[in-house]
Amino acid sequence: MNFCSACGQPVIFKIPEGDNRPRYVCDHCQTIHYQNPRAITLTLPIAPDGRILLCKRNIEPQKNYWTLPGGFMENDESTLQGALRETWEEARVKADTGELFAVISVPKWHQVHLFYRIQMPDFSFAATEESSEVKLFNETEIPWSSLAFKTVECALKHYLELPKAGFSVLNTSLSG
Amino acid sequence: MNFCSACGQPVIFKIPEGDNRPRYVCDHCQTIHYQNPRAITLTLPIAPDGRILLCKRNIEPQKNYWTLPGGFMENDESTLQGALRETWEEARVKADTGELFAVISVPKWHQVHLFYRIQMPDFSFAATEESSEVKLFNETEIPWSSLAFKTVECALKHYLELPKAGFSVLNTSLSG
Ligand SMILES: [Zn+2]
Ligand SMILES: [Zn+2]
Repeated sequence: MNFCSACGQPVIFKIPEGDNRPRYVCDHCQTIHYQNPRAITLTLPIAPDGRILLCKRNIEPQKNYWTLPGGFMENDESTLQGALRETWEEARVKADTGELFAVISVPKWHQVHLFYRIQMPDFSFAATEESSEVKLFNETEIPWSSLAFKTVECALKHYLELPKAGFSVLNTSLSG
Repeated sequence: MNFCSACGQPVIFKIPEGDNRPRYVCDHCQTIHYQNPRAITLTLPIAPDGRILLCKRNIEPQKNYWTLPGGFMENDESTLQGALRETWEEARVKADTGELFAVISVPKWHQVHLFYRIQMPDFSFAATEESSEVKLFNETEIPWSSLAFKTVECALKHYLELPKAGFSVLNTSLSG
């Protein structure tokens, strides 16, 4: 950030009065520009036969690696709505509900990832502009070494342990 | 948003190529300025005798109304760290762990509120610049009609139902 988005004048990076950490501040119009982590909402879609749906990313970062469908939450939607919207956009899977089962912070990336478990109503899914391939995997087929993100690995592992441990929400923080 | 924070030129509000919703876009340096919901992290502190700690807000909005301690999550911290930091800043309660028990979206405000249940190690707490009064309440004493935010009411109600229903995470969306 170099300029004030409100008035267009240069900003400076300093600790505002009454605060305890540096922010981008505009001395012209007095706006303090706070920067906060972003929420990524994702789903773990389960087919009627119990297999898990994964998407091969067709976009950077981590192009050609496998991921659970998800993306940045938008204003004017709930975390669940964001997760379901991204699942449609990336894998053409339609669901209208889901259960939050993992909340994983990634402080280094300024992100919080929220994962929902969803039941696919049928075997409908498709590749999209964002996913070059969309495929169902048995527990033993999951491509652990080709997963796009550590948070996805962490959420998948937690899901696979759930049947033994009863439903619980994983809440953790990853270093990067 | 009127100006590009990267180059200082005026932005326009339009649907970028390949996108499906309008964004603030800079045609000068091609930056797309995404706007996303913010995470608010809070705690429900429980004293050794089971009473619940609430803070009377000393700042707007909702000055003089009661709330659970919390505030905007910062970059470089996890949701739990954010919740514990705010609890220290607002009520001088120190804890080093907590359990996520409610995730409440407020699409209208572009916010997601994440609530942690924490056990206070002792009866230490204090008023601060942000809280004119900090006080412990029995279940029957909670000032329902003077709570600052609907999400706080919702989280408190869920907490009070937990002993009967077993531990579960409330995940919902509020209209405003
Ligand atoms: Zn300004
Ligand atoms: Zn620009």
